[in-house]
Amino acid sequence: MIHQKKIGILGGGQLGKMLAIAAADWSLDIHGLDPDKEAPAKGYYKTLLCGDFNDYNTVMSFGQSMDIITIEIEHVNTDALKELKEMGKTVHPEPEALEVIKDKGAQKLFYQRNHIPTAPFYLCENKQAILSLVENGVINIPFVQKSRSAGYDGKGVLVVDDINKLEKLFDTSSLIEEMADIDKELAIIVSRNESGEYSSFPAVEMLFNPVENLVENLICPADISEQAEKTCREIAKTIIEKLDICGVLAVEFFLNKDGEIWVNEVAPRPHNSGHHTIEANYTSQYQQHLRSILNLSPGNTGLCTQKAMMVNILGEANHTGEANYIGLEEVFQMSNTYVHIYGKKNTKPMRKMGHVTILDDGSISIKDKAKKVLDTLKVFSK
Amino acid sequence: MIHQKKIGILGGGQLGKMLAIAAADWSLDIHGLDPDKEAPAKGYYKTLLCGDFNDYNTVMSFGQSMDIITIEIEHVNTDALKELKEMGKTVHPEPEALEVIKDKGAQKLFYQRNHIPTAPFYLCENKQAILSLVENGVINIPFVQKSRSAGYDGKGVLVVDDINKLEKLFDTSSLIEEMADIDKELAIIVSRNESGEYSSFPAVEMLFNPVENLVENLICPADISEQAEKTCREIAKTIIEKLDICGVLAVEFFLNKDGEIWVNEVAPRPHNSGHHTIEANYTSQYQQHLRSILNLSPGNTGLCTQKAMMVNILGEANHTGEANYIGLEEVFQMSNTYVHIYGKKNTKPMRKMGHVTILDDGSISIKDKAKKVLDTLKVFSK
Repeated sequence: MIHQKKIGILGGGQLGKMLAIAAADWSLDIHGLDPDKEAPAKGYYKTLLCGDFNDYNTVMSFGQSMDIITIEIEHVNTDALKELKEMGKTVHPEPEALEVIKDKGAQKLFYQRNHIPTAPFYLCENKQAILSLVENGVINIPFVQKSRSAGYDGKGVLVVDDINKLEKLFDTSSLIEEMADIDKELAIIVSRNESGEYSSFPAVEMLFNPVENLVENLICPADISEQAEKTCREIAKTIIEKLDICGVLAVEFFLNKDGEIWVNEVAPRPHNSGHHTIEANYTSQYQQHLRSILNLSPGNTGLCTQKAMMVNILGEANHTGEANYIGLEEVFQMSNTYVHIYGKKNTKPMRKMGHVTILDDGSISIKDKAKKVLDTLKVFSK
Repeated sequence: MIHQKKIGILGGGQLGKMLAIAAADWSLDIHGLDPDKEAPAKGYYKTLLCGDFNDYNTVMSFGQSMDIITIEIEHVNTDALKELKEMGKTVHPEPEALEVIKDKGAQKLFYQRNHIPTAPFYLCENKQAILSLVENGVINIPFVQKSRSAGYDGKGVLVVDDINKLEKLFDTSSLIEEMADIDKELAIIVSRNESGEYSSFPAVEMLFNPVENLVENLICPADISEQAEKTCREIAKTIIEKLDICGVLAVEFFLNKDGEIWVNEVAPRPHNSGHHTIEANYTSQYQQHLRSILNLSPGNTGLCTQKAMMVNILGEANHTGEANYIGLEEVFQMSNTYVHIYGKKNTKPMRKMGHVTILDDGSISIKDKAKKVLDTLKVFSK
């Protein structure tokens, strides 16, 4: 019975918090592990153990008292997860899949091996190796350097669009990708359970902040052809099956100007590109993840609105310290507009502090409303 | 700023739990008071103080450390609430309104005084007074006895539809109502904030379990004329204004066979008849209550689906003890079907253990689906 399962989540950020809120409807027994004792999920998990999810012993001791172990961040200790699986614990996603995904180089090799379309790439051991390939005309500017092991949300990523940027290259084992000639960036959330039941959410279109490499807002459904949507869903299905993952998987795509679709990268957990599903879809990505790891049937992934947008609420530039939300009351006056505040005590520039989802109500354009939210709601320090 | 307000809720049942889940989106600082240290809201409130909300000193000491005090059950100590208000605390709903509502006799006198249509009634001090009025032909069988001060969910209510039932009359101060010739029972949730902004949700139609006097399921929108809907909304608006209540107020109506509409009773808090708003409406009654007590603008109360039903999941007859949910996996297979389990450890006959909301998906009839849920999901003891 689902209530007798003790579910442990590695990580206690906003994704963990939203998983816990989804779990509350069913009174699931949810516990978490995070190095920050004031992590956003605190007070929403039944218990929050303060510790490092990258540390073997910490993950082992946390996981041993759980029945099911899952994640809300992929940078965790996979040796411990493998050991817990050996001991008979249910671990979703597969630790082996996590290892492939955590290493951006291994992830690209996985796509290549499985004939999944992705941007051409080179793997380089260090800065010198990259410079040599540039010198020999193998790699052409502009290109992107991605540290194989580090980070997400634009961390460990360098866009080299000018010869002078070469000196800024990270001296680390890297994935080099030539710049795709991108028309749109898309994402699809898919899910799978132990019985092999599969679902996919409608594609979303992501719009990035031009300065930082962070999703600023997204719109759903994506303005793409039926064929492109179908191709994305098929690719996403292939990936979740080949990786043998139970849970949700977010797959990010480039739709190139020539119409080709390339996989950019994946995340084996609820994802920023699925926040809107809380209000815009019959089932949220969070409940879908819980359904998947509990081996329940997937819920209906359809949109229950014509159109939805999600805007990330990021810490304002030049503001570091205790968070102060400006313009909140005005946003509450906007119809069909859903505020999510993550409860992080301190803000810093570009930190994800919350998000707002907007459902189409047929009045003013949804894009104008999204712009109004971004112009109105600001996170300053006190 | 809404995050700096400490919100205290008297009661920690399922209504409190769902208020806390709604508050989680905004990371509000929610605390509760309940005599049961394992109350459903435990783990969803930031803290749960174990104590009696009918005790003056307990409510005072709980309320003194809060900025805003509200309720999820109306049977609380109103003297303490008045005192807290005197001290400058924000108290919603008004303690004076609570006193009117808690006493079913005073509630009826309030309707009479304000020309609000309601069933004809008599107030009797004890069993003997009732028997005299029956003997003198003033009160006719069938009638309903309602204890003026006790209970909800059918407690303290006796239907006298046969002369032999007279001996079962409670010997207590009572409200006597002649039986209305009812076509339908309806409910409307309304809200109001300190700025006087008002909203009302679409009317729902309630279907009662014929054995116990408990709502078994409800459907929204109600199958009534536009004029009847308009009348209900107008009456509900008059009541919330005359009672000077901030927060949500549930108003239950009888639609009589002759077309007349009578107010049955009200509850100044989120209500069983508004559970479906979590999934079926753009704004839930829980977020509307929070918006109202925080003096934020009301959210859109419209339905985001064609039709919705809510079924209460009640403890099975002859089962008392640790709860065991039968058929849960099957219900998770039904599309657009939303399970809510309140997390009560023990079940007993007719105890409210959860509810399921069903949104129309145009496939099989929503009423058939509701019946299937009721036939499938059972709460047994272990």
